Amino acid sequence: MTRVYNFSAGPAALPEEVLSQARDEMLDWHGAGMSVMEMSHRGKEFMSIAAEAEADLRQLMAIPDNYKVLFLQGGASAQFAMVPLNLIGSTGKADYLRTGSWSKKAIAEGKRYGEVRVTADSEQDGRFTSVPAADALGLNGDAAYVHYTPNETIEGVEFPYVPDTGDIPLVADMSSTILSRPIDVSRFGIIYAGAQKNIGPAGLTIAIVRDDLIGKALETTPTMFKYDIHAAAGSMYNTPPTYGWYLAGLVFKWLQGKGGLAGMAEINQRKAKALYDAIDASDFYHNPVDPACRSWMNVPFTLADAELDATFLSQAAEAGLKTLKGHRSVGGMRASIYNAMPEAGVKALIDFMAEFERSHG
Amino acid sequence: MTRVYNFSAGPAALPEEVLSQARDEMLDWHGAGMSVMEMSHRGKEFMSIAAEAEADLRQLMAIPDNYKVLFLQGGASAQFAMVPLNLIGSTGKADYLRTGSWSKKAIAEGKRYGEVRVTADSEQDGRFTSVPAADALGLNGDAAYVHYTPNETIEGVEFPYVPDTGDIPLVADMSSTILSRPIDVSRFGIIYAGAQKNIGPAGLTIAIVRDDLIGKALETTPTMFKYDIHAAAGSMYNTPPTYGWYLAGLVFKWLQGKGGLAGMAEINQRKAKALYDAIDASDFYHNPVDPACRSWMNVPFTLADAELDATFLSQAAEAGLKTLKGHRSVGGMRASIYNAMPEAGVKALIDFMAEFERSHG
Repeated sequence: MTRVYNFSAGPAALPEEVLSQARDEMLDWHGAGMSVMEMSHRGKEFMSIAAEAEADLRQLMAIPDNYKVLFLQGGASAQFAMVPLNLIGSTGKADYLRTGSWSKKAIAEGKRYGEVRVTADSEQDGRFTSVPAADALGLNGDAAYVHYTPNETIEGVEFPYVPDTGDIPLVADMSSTILSRPIDVSRFGIIYAGAQKNIGPAGLTIAIVRDDLIGKALETTPTMFKYDIHAAAGSMYNTPPTYGWYLAGLVFKWLQGKGGLAGMAEINQRKAKALYDAIDASDFYHNPVDPACRSWMNVPFTLADAELDATFLSQAAEAGLKTLKGHRSVGGMRASIYNAMPEAGVKALIDFMAEFERSHG
Repeated sequence: MTRVYNFSAGPAALPEEVLSQARDEMLDWHGAGMSVMEMSHRGKEFMSIAAEAEADLRQLMAIPDNYKVLFLQGGASAQFAMVPLNLIGSTGKADYLRTGSWSKKAIAEGKRYGEVRVTADSEQDGRFTSVPAADALGLNGDAAYVHYTPNETIEGVEFPYVPDTGDIPLVADMSSTILSRPIDVSRFGIIYAGAQKNIGPAGLTIAIVRDDLIGKALETTPTMFKYDIHAAAGSMYNTPPTYGWYLAGLVFKWLQGKGGLAGMAEINQRKAKALYDAIDASDFYHNPVDPACRSWMNVPFTLADAELDATFLSQAAEAGLKTLKGHRSVGGMRASIYNAMPEAGVKALIDFMAEFERSHG
């Protein structure tokens, strides 16, 4: 068996230690005589797995007691509807920041349920390469909430600051940010994230919801889309994605072993800096993003000659560096370097890029 | 490692062969150098896994070409809303058959989106122990669809027939029926099923939807709840639950090796008959369900003396027979004997029950 370095933007690489443990426990979890995925979600074994995962996440993120942690399904795409369905009722209006492909999707869905105002938009010449200035967000006092996307996975753009929305709840799609560094949860009304980048396998979604925002859903909201239903049932209103929940718990333990989010942030910052430095030092590779807004997690780059893209990808794959193709809307390459990507993987990519430039530049 | 016989109603036991293969492939699928759960859902490896799983399911169930097979999230509970949201618009009215706990939930959610008529109801003295007669369903000609629950998991009641609804689409919650025997899919408008009983792990939901029923969703339907969105995208509108999809594919291969659904039906019928025969031959154990409507999949039974329930459960667990406690709403015991429960497991339960009766009866 040879493990590759997998730069997928999601579903993304998972820590090898986590996968090894999952493998070893696959047929018999801790002497229970069955796999975690065969356990009744209401039995004491799975209830203990679920509770421990939540406790570890609360510890890692220092989540205050007045927030519920929900383990849901449907990904960020489901949250694009759940957020307005549950929150917009108070005034019928919400403010959204438009900074890339994922915030555009959130905006489109939000407009179906109320008056969505795009109060700041960083699109220039059809591209997103920066974020709006902190003092130019144009927020309205009557917004039920403000929605933004701290990290735009496709464009590789991230906010270097948390927007100040005063008393208005701030809602963040943190699919590509969560667990990559410490975050002050108390600044947010809702944080949500699909698991398949920094948490665990696809099919699990985590929503961290402040208590006062629960229980105000619009009348037409499907029961499965109501935060209050899931909060009241401890995320067991119906059968949750139990195996994903378990794997997330293993990832949380792994993060604790890495020094928690402060330790992870140091590693992630080093990884990103090394890769951006290599790109910037070269005339062959190029990243278009404003250096102040470059994502730690997703590093898009182009080659001087796009004709070489296919060769780059095939030689990289031969060298054990996989899933480097950029999103079709942006082109070029994208290296996603989430928590599970070790520094050695980033170094291997940098070395390969230098060698490729030498032979093709 | 000692595997137990796990009689959980869901998440339920999975075939040991499937779990062993998943274990062996956990860190490196077929030389890809990564786990299936780390693969981009849009990469060629996962696309091939997904396509093969769908093709195998189509083969197993002989699904006609004018049906889409959707791999979704949210379980049957999400379908309770998706069905009316997508289908009730044509007339605003639908007929539901009320036969147990799960159909009651479907009815409650359906009523939030239109005029739901309960045209047949098998509740008697607060219990559900049979189904309505085939000629007493009271269906209305203006129903957009008819919904029923072929197998009520909690009560252990199943329909011995498929309702004849003429030209009105028949919608079935087959969570506990799918893959247990051959089914004539052409009799149905929609078949849906949570995976966690006979398909794979929790978090995956399969919906088999006839083409003409796609594209008619109510205006307020969340995008993620629209069948047309998922159908047009081949269930990849957003990131699907990739690992569950892969495991479902392994289960489909396993079923093909068992002689398909005809072979599985023979085994399942033998398992159910053996257990019901043992219960009926005893004065100590009792099953309350009309013999014509007894579930092949979920066998609830009570002991002559409910004071012995705890002893029965603890001694059964010591004997490697787990998760036999009945649902709190029904009490007593419940043995769920889905496809992955081998005949040897049912025999072990019958032997244990006889021994328990001898020592406590």
